Amino acid sequence: MIPSCMQGAASLSFPIPVYVQSCASIVSQKEAEGPLGKHFDMVCPDPKFGEDTWEASESTLQKDTALLAIRKSGLSIPEIRLAFAGDLLAQTSASSFGIAGIGIPFYGLFGACSTMGEALSLGAMAVSAGYASHVLCATSSHFATAEKEFRFPLGYGSQRPASATWTVTGSGACVLGDCPPALPVPGQSAPLRTEKGCAVIQGITTGKLIDYGMKDSLNMGACMAPAACDTICQNLFDFGRSPDDYDCIFTGDLGTVGQRILQDLLLEKGVDISRQHQDCGMLIYDSKAQDTHAGGSGCGCAASVLTSFILPGVADGKWNRVLFVPTGALLSKVSFNEGDTIPGIAHAVIIEHREVQP
Amino acid sequence: MIPSCMQGAASLSFPIPVYVQSCASIVSQKEAEGPLGKHFDMVCPDPKFGEDTWEASESTLQKDTALLAIRKSGLSIPEIRLAFAGDLLAQTSASSFGIAGIGIPFYGLFGACSTMGEALSLGAMAVSAGYASHVLCATSSHFATAEKEFRFPLGYGSQRPASATWTVTGSGACVLGDCPPALPVPGQSAPLRTEKGCAVIQGITTGKLIDYGMKDSLNMGACMAPAACDTICQNLFDFGRSPDDYDCIFTGDLGTVGQRILQDLLLEKGVDISRQHQDCGMLIYDSKAQDTHAGGSGCGCAASVLTSFILPGVADGKWNRVLFVPTGALLSKVSFNEGDTIPGIAHAVIIEHREVQP
Repeated sequence: MIPSCMQGAASLSFPIPVYVQSCASIVSQKEAEGPLGKHFDMVCPDPKFGEDTWEASESTLQKDTALLAIRKSGLSIPEIRLAFAGDLLAQTSASSFGIAGIGIPFYGLFGACSTMGEALSLGAMAVSAGYASHVLCATSSHFATAEKEFRFPLGYGSQRPASATWTVTGSGACVLGDCPPALPVPGQSAPLRTEKGCAVIQGITTGKLIDYGMKDSLNMGACMAPAACDTICQNLFDFGRSPDDYDCIFTGDLGTVGQRILQDLLLEKGVDISRQHQDCGMLIYDSKAQDTHAGGSGCGCAASVLTSFILPGVADGKWNRVLFVPTGALLSKVSFNEGDTIPGIAHAVIIEHREVQP
Repeated sequence: MIPSCMQGAASLSFPIPVYVQSCASIVSQKEAEGPLGKHFDMVCPDPKFGEDTWEASESTLQKDTALLAIRKSGLSIPEIRLAFAGDLLAQTSASSFGIAGIGIPFYGLFGACSTMGEALSLGAMAVSAGYASHVLCATSSHFATAEKEFRFPLGYGSQRPASATWTVTGSGACVLGDCPPALPVPGQSAPLRTEKGCAVIQGITTGKLIDYGMKDSLNMGACMAPAACDTICQNLFDFGRSPDDYDCIFTGDLGTVGQRILQDLLLEKGVDISRQHQDCGMLIYDSKAQDTHAGGSGCGCAASVLTSFILPGVADGKWNRVLFVPTGALLSKVSFNEGDTIPGIAHAVIIEHREVQP
């Protein structure tokens, strides 16, 4: 017997709704100067976030964003039963020295830039199953830590090709819960609830590793597009839907090159998402004015766009149902230098508008 | 209303039992020469597992162990709905190029050497909630990849202090499911089922990050012991149990130094586990004869001892109820070199013997 929550081969629909209680985003100056600038909760002009090292900066950014999401929810830390988070650094050290220090029972994740999708998926599974009344999901990235982790020293002045993306210095965090978010209390809390309603996670599609043999770490969009294609097709198949059943399909950080590849790959399968598709990496920067080439990237790209722009839009009824599909490129310095391919993975989360009785 | 599955502040008990369908372990020569040698499923005398690089070796080790666990379960790959795995390498690349390539929808984890506890916890949560009939949980470590990732080149001949541990070259994998394991079919399958019964996961305690300010990466036992202490105390408190309610409490890789610290820390809280405590890191090597100093370590240490020695023992009724508590030290090369502390985390899994009707 297949339980009613299982949909198709890789998807779940949640019989007990999972409410986004609150969400928070903190970014740095460059992101604040982009098209979404006015949507972020906080902008820190100091890229070091008051710390001595870049790694400590990212940890502080992530921890502060998580604490802000908790504060906005109106809950206290002990009311959050589980935390799910990860980041791009070796041994996910931004999370170990960031959110993990808050003291909530913690599961560390690694999904590269798909991490927010993984965290929301596992968090929603825990809430809908009754394992937790409230969970915290978060991730982050920082331009300087990512450059240091994956690329050449900036001082070398290496040229960035047109397909390269710019790592977002930003973090996004959500509190998920098993009941509708409370009404905001001015000066005290700001749950994700408008006069029109709130946002719920209705289902998920778990990604598989997809490897098309790409090896160019300065063309991550091409590395990740096949994974986005696979997960979107799987989602449509598992739920018996067409792209028109979504008001928007948001990928994480494919950028302009990856977007074209994704749309072409899907068209080959007879799926046209050109009307619905948006990419967080293309939304966050004005690529010409800000010289970011193909767009933004990093765990913090999808996460900060989700928590500043997508979730508030869904709660306000701007969109009724969206598919959030952050994509991750699974590489390390070592795997790249040893000539390995760069496989991708993408996790999809179905987010829907819900009216709430006053 | 608190659902019946929530126990105390950080624990869950599973109302729907989660059965260990099968388990598999593969190790290298040094582990085969240790006290548990005869228990492992396979020993590969070539430390490169037929590959060209150490990283590819670990990936192959992990993938082969996962495939062996699936084969032993008698299931086919498409019957496994979700996979949970991680490892010690930067960006968990042993898993990205290992188990993730099997094609099962995949959640990547990072919990350092606590990863097997994290994978079993999330896997059991998914099965008990009806999200998956069968899931795969796995992890690995390799002496050479870990030395390369975290330490000085071996050729420098750096001295290892007495508190240092030896990274296990090994992998362990389990298939969990929602029904009792089938009877073995000789030559075809070897589920974890004896005449006496099988093993089930009855509950979990999720670990919190614990930081006592330790900074010595050659004394990981001391870094991780406080986390083991916290999780064991939390487990006893949440379930209203005393150490005597467990036949054995197995920590992951504290080694001789960490064991003494753990037992002392627990005694300060009035908890005496000296009769129940065993440590996988102390079980896997003969530290004097094999010159491994404080014991074995690495994700593969707890995982290979679990799947070769602990789970078969529980299935056979040697122990009725054990607590499996792998511990992780959350550090990276960068965090260590920047002078950060080494926090620890430990996830506990309650494993019980169950009789099965023929």
